[in-house]
Amino acid sequence: MSQSLRQSLFSPQSVAIVGQSDDVTKTAGRPLKFLRQAGFGGRIYPINPRRQDVLGERAYPSLTALPEVPEHVYVVAPTEAVIEAVAECGRLGVKVATVLADGFAEAGPVGEAREARLKEICAATHLRIIGPSSLGIVDLRSKAMLTANAAFDEVDLPVGRILAASHSGSMIGALLSRGKARGIGFAGLVSVGNEVDLSLGEICEATLDDPGIDGYMLFLETLRHADALRRFAQRAAVANKPVIAYKLGRSQEARELAVSHTGALAGEDDVADAFLADCGIARVDTLDGLIEGLPLLQRVPRRTPGGRKATVGVVTTTAGGATMVVDPLASRGVTVAAPAPETLARIRAATGIDVKPALLIDLTTTGARYEAMKAALDVLIAASEFDLIVAVVGSSARFLPERAVKPIIDCASAAKPIAAYLVPEAPAALAALSAAGVPNFRTPEACADAVAAALGRRAPRAAASAKKHEAPSSARLLDELAAYELLERLGIACAPSVALDVGIKDAPVLPFPYPVAVKALSADIPHKTEAGGVELNIRDGNELTAALARICKNVGPSLARVMVQPMVTGLSEVLVGYRVDRDVGPLIMLAAGGVLAEIYRDRSLRLAPVDLATAREMIDEVRGLAALKGYRNRPAGDLDALAQTIVALSQLAVMDDAVAEAEINPLIVHARGQGVTAVDALVRLL
Amino acid sequence: MSQSLRQSLFSPQSVAIVGQSDDVTKTAGRPLKFLRQAGFGGRIYPINPRRQDVLGERAYPSLTALPEVPEHVYVVAPTEAVIEAVAECGRLGVKVATVLADGFAEAGPVGEAREARLKEICAATHLRIIGPSSLGIVDLRSKAMLTANAAFDEVDLPVGRILAASHSGSMIGALLSRGKARGIGFAGLVSVGNEVDLSLGEICEATLDDPGIDGYMLFLETLRHADALRRFAQRAAVANKPVIAYKLGRSQEARELAVSHTGALAGEDDVADAFLADCGIARVDTLDGLIEGLPLLQRVPRRTPGGRKATVGVVTTTAGGATMVVDPLASRGVTVAAPAPETLARIRAATGIDVKPALLIDLTTTGARYEAMKAALDVLIAASEFDLIVAVVGSSARFLPERAVKPIIDCASAAKPIAAYLVPEAPAALAALSAAGVPNFRTPEACADAVAAALGRRAPRAAASAKKHEAPSSARLLDELAAYELLERLGIACAPSVALDVGIKDAPVLPFPYPVAVKALSADIPHKTEAGGVELNIRDGNELTAALARICKNVGPSLARVMVQPMVTGLSEVLVGYRVDRDVGPLIMLAAGGVLAEIYRDRSLRLAPVDLATAREMIDEVRGLAALKGYRNRPAGDLDALAQTIVALSQLAVMDDAVAEAEINPLIVHARGQGVTAVDALVRLL
Repeated sequence: MSQSLRQSLFSPQSVAIVGQSDDVTKTAGRPLKFLRQAGFGGRIYPINPRRQDVLGERAYPSLTALPEVPEHVYVVAPTEAVIEAVAECGRLGVKVATVLADGFAEAGPVGEAREARLKEICAATHLRIIGPSSLGIVDLRSKAMLTANAAFDEVDLPVGRILAASHSGSMIGALLSRGKARGIGFAGLVSVGNEVDLSLGEICEATLDDPGIDGYMLFLETLRHADALRRFAQRAAVANKPVIAYKLGRSQEARELAVSHTGALAGEDDVADAFLADCGIARVDTLDGLIEGLPLLQRVPRRTPGGRKATVGVVTTTAGGATMVVDPLASRGVTVAAPAPETLARIRAATGIDVKPALLIDLTTTGARYEAMKAALDVLIAASEFDLIVAVVGSSARFLPERAVKPIIDCASAAKPIAAYLVPEAPAALAALSAAGVPNFRTPEACADAVAAALGRRAPRAAASAKKHEAPSSARLLDELAAYELLERLGIACAPSVALDVGIKDAPVLPFPYPVAVKALSADIPHKTEAGGVELNIRDGNELTAALARICKNVGPSLARVMVQPMVTGLSEVLVGYRVDRDVGPLIMLAAGGVLAEIYRDRSLRLAPVDLATAREMIDEVRGLAALKGYRNRPAGDLDALAQTIVALSQLAVMDDAVAEAEINPLIVHARGQGVTAVDALVRLL
Repeated sequence: MSQSLRQSLFSPQSVAIVGQSDDVTKTAGRPLKFLRQAGFGGRIYPINPRRQDVLGERAYPSLTALPEVPEHVYVVAPTEAVIEAVAECGRLGVKVATVLADGFAEAGPVGEAREARLKEICAATHLRIIGPSSLGIVDLRSKAMLTANAAFDEVDLPVGRILAASHSGSMIGALLSRGKARGIGFAGLVSVGNEVDLSLGEICEATLDDPGIDGYMLFLETLRHADALRRFAQRAAVANKPVIAYKLGRSQEARELAVSHTGALAGEDDVADAFLADCGIARVDTLDGLIEGLPLLQRVPRRTPGGRKATVGVVTTTAGGATMVVDPLASRGVTVAAPAPETLARIRAATGIDVKPALLIDLTTTGARYEAMKAALDVLIAASEFDLIVAVVGSSARFLPERAVKPIIDCASAAKPIAAYLVPEAPAALAALSAAGVPNFRTPEACADAVAAALGRRAPRAAASAKKHEAPSSARLLDELAAYELLERLGIACAPSVALDVGIKDAPVLPFPYPVAVKALSADIPHKTEAGGVELNIRDGNELTAALARICKNVGPSLARVMVQPMVTGLSEVLVGYRVDRDVGPLIMLAAGGVLAEIYRDRSLRLAPVDLATAREMIDEVRGLAALKGYRNRPAGDLDALAQTIVALSQLAVMDDAVAEAEINPLIVHARGQGVTAVDALVRLL
């Protein structure tokens, strides 16, 4: 199936262009021009009911009038004509229709109705649809230039081994043309549009057995169809074909734009981070990092969660230029390290340079010399403390690449990955590095971006459970005692609690000492504190009955029971939460407690479930937990117990319980060896 | 003076190259080659005592042997020969010596001694020195190619109107060659090296009356000689010549490298931010932003502290491509806004496109059309809600620039600045934009970087006071009562306090009610809490005498007095601090209270003194103070009083008091109208 879909998508035997214009200056005039210009070898049928001919070729009045059923139809007709054309494709048995027009899901109820019709056609026939809002799909090998993107109006496009897939139609032109300027070619490019049928992940997956494709370059605006993207990423990892992605939405503003632009809903950016990482997709933050990053991914092994953190060594002929790479690397949390004393000694011996013990291995003092750079690289490649080498070459790279660029090329086949950044404009040297297979970068920012993304990439995981991806269908809560029962079943320690009827006259004997907390106990009150349903630090029986009365007054006559707990104190409070995200499924979150942590959005997210090593990584990522890690000689918290609690709560992703959301806030963290205690819990069912 | 210095630096009548090699493959072989290759019109004297001729020209044995005293000498001899050569320059009356060799301040005591010798020579003669560690100084108009940087080995270097000055010698080659690839030329470039005599700021200042220089591009590794940089920046602002700077050191790692590399000391990055902003220098974060940003600075007016925040409107033919700019703009705190309803209506009427009300003015639906883009730009230029327009053009920019790039060019003379980002590779369109004077960018990151830097630029201020820049010479503290007296003189409300002799037997009658705090009162204990010298929440006289005894025991027999204060509570605690920074002088800081704020480094810094508008900006910048601004319906704090306190403490910068550091921690912020109270203060004298 996949292979025949791949053929229909990228190398169809015959294509029709519905709505092909006779005017090449119009968008709808481009596909035929580009197909002929490129020399597409298949049969081409322009469809235009109002003309006998277009661009000097016979035009057919309709798909039905063609001498055969075309394999792939590009519908470039206006929005109003799309449904009829696609319906005809379905009736005739066309394999794939790609739709250019917009005016669908992003255009309100009328557009949504149109999109629903397209879905019905797909369901009723064997037709697969790309788009709508697709600027097209291109294979530079078969010359199937099914695109209306103006940037494809040239003949000598370099063929490469990369497939580019983009939510933005304009970006396929940007990747193509910017790639060409760097000598980077593509096997194919696809603008996936609104993904009414074929999603970006499905299209990429269909090409995985293409021996001419080595890697994938993705431009993402949303995580719609995350399951398909994950499935593709998993299979791509098996096939050893790396995937690099740029995703819009670091800022709230950009996420809102994705909503208005594509009709998708905006998720949170750290959810996207967690999802892409879980899929083993390397996310970059710069356009140049996206374009230049794949060769590095091909050389950097995936990391193991909990494994030793990768370390980067930097060797250079210019301290200032190299520091431009170190700066963004360090800001992204990549460990740049000085060489070990024995490595430094070996470098000094091999180069004859009195290299200083510093983060940079700086060979500047003698100018750029082949022997010094080659000897230093040889030592660094053999040095076990480094997982990746960044080589930064100064002005000599422009006209004297034999000095300090050639030694990098001569290390191209080394087992350790090397990333090269050349400080001056040095196109010839960059081309030579590319030809030798050395990952190279035009800017320090792209170099750091790609190195950080490559080192952070892990093996993709399978999704937790398909059913867990359903959106929450109810807002049904468990009351707090029932929530504790669920947590206790997961092995999470909760504060001892007793339920009291609100009707009691005298305070009962409690199984724990005062002071205590009293809380309204109800499945109908998600925000107890805001409802006046919580009283803390109750010191005796009299205060208890008084508190009970106040709570009843605040919450109202519907309240039947309250819950009493001892006041639990510890070193710190954290929030551990589980929820099923609409796009990516079950998530587990750890955050520092308190309003400041909320303001700083200081939290760590992973797709659930997680193992202990991953839970420990999450603890490391939450900056506000520094106090629990012994910051300024504070007593250390029980981070083992905290990690176990994270793991336990994340198991909801693989249990039968239909939990949409579970939040422990706060979880009290005690001193090392003393465990943790949940003192409030909110559980929402699917 | 300045003009003759400028001539000696950039267009000397005669030059000598001390240590000129006969071998052009060596660094010391380059200067003569480059001078001849460029066609330098002045007299050139190679000096090489071991040869009769070098590169086919007569070589002189020494400076003394020359037929005249050369105006500018480039010393490219090895480190050991530098002092003698420079001393000879001084004796002969040479105006400027530029020194290539390293091995000075960065090389330990021997190097420091060499540097001291250079300073002595300058002090004893009229010689000015660039370097050591200078890769040279170049004027592309006079063809004075006094450089050993390998990237200058070409003839057709475009002459422009920019002066580039760099702490890194390699970077002058990077700026030159990368500029050339973009059609950006330079008037001159200088590698300032260790700045033993002439600093980067002084060299730039010497060129301010050069009518061929319109702007300055700086690559900074340290803020050494900040006074000279500020003086230059102030005078540059008067001359209306913008200054753009890239400064290494966003990360701690990079700051440490600057230490080891240049022998300078590392400051903190937000100090550099505050200093450059105070000087009206636009700081960028990307190499491309540095190279491409000056034309935008030339068009964006400087902002007024406390004035309306600038707003950016984005118009585009590609939503995805434009969002790539919005994302980093928003992440940098730039306000990107949707058009006002009336502006939107005007755009719809003028373009005939049903543009949606969103952050982007998205003209995609009809494809790229001249009329639509031009009409939209005209409306946006007239719309009062926007201070700057970003125009993003998609694939049409590559081969059809007449569609959506031409309209931008046709708006080049509009009063409102426009920044253009072209999504595909489109060199011809970029060149056309540059020729028309439209600021344009190759990457979305550089575009956002330059826009943010330009909009954040203010008018430079004069330094507070020269004497305040002295490094703290003592560690003398005021005791806390004396510190309060100082604060009260500044108009800052402090908690009422009484001093008690440690010898008292009974608790005295206090002028304020219990509970109180008791603290050791001494100018010798900077960290009272850590010394066991603080007791809080003392509830009565008995507890007071007991607390006093414990404090005496903890602190020891040297303690003579304690201080008693009422316990003051409020909405929140903040830290307000003043200190004299070694590099940049007096600073005022505001931070949220507590360990979390410390961990998050959540603070705002300015050079002192500040006015009320600036103090309010500082309050806005500290995220952790959100709670005081009404976050989630919390009661608002007295931000007016807080702002006044910041202003008051910052006045230390212009007062006679020799204060090196003053910290109020905590300052209690009460509810609106209730003021603020200092409850602890530390003052350290110069």
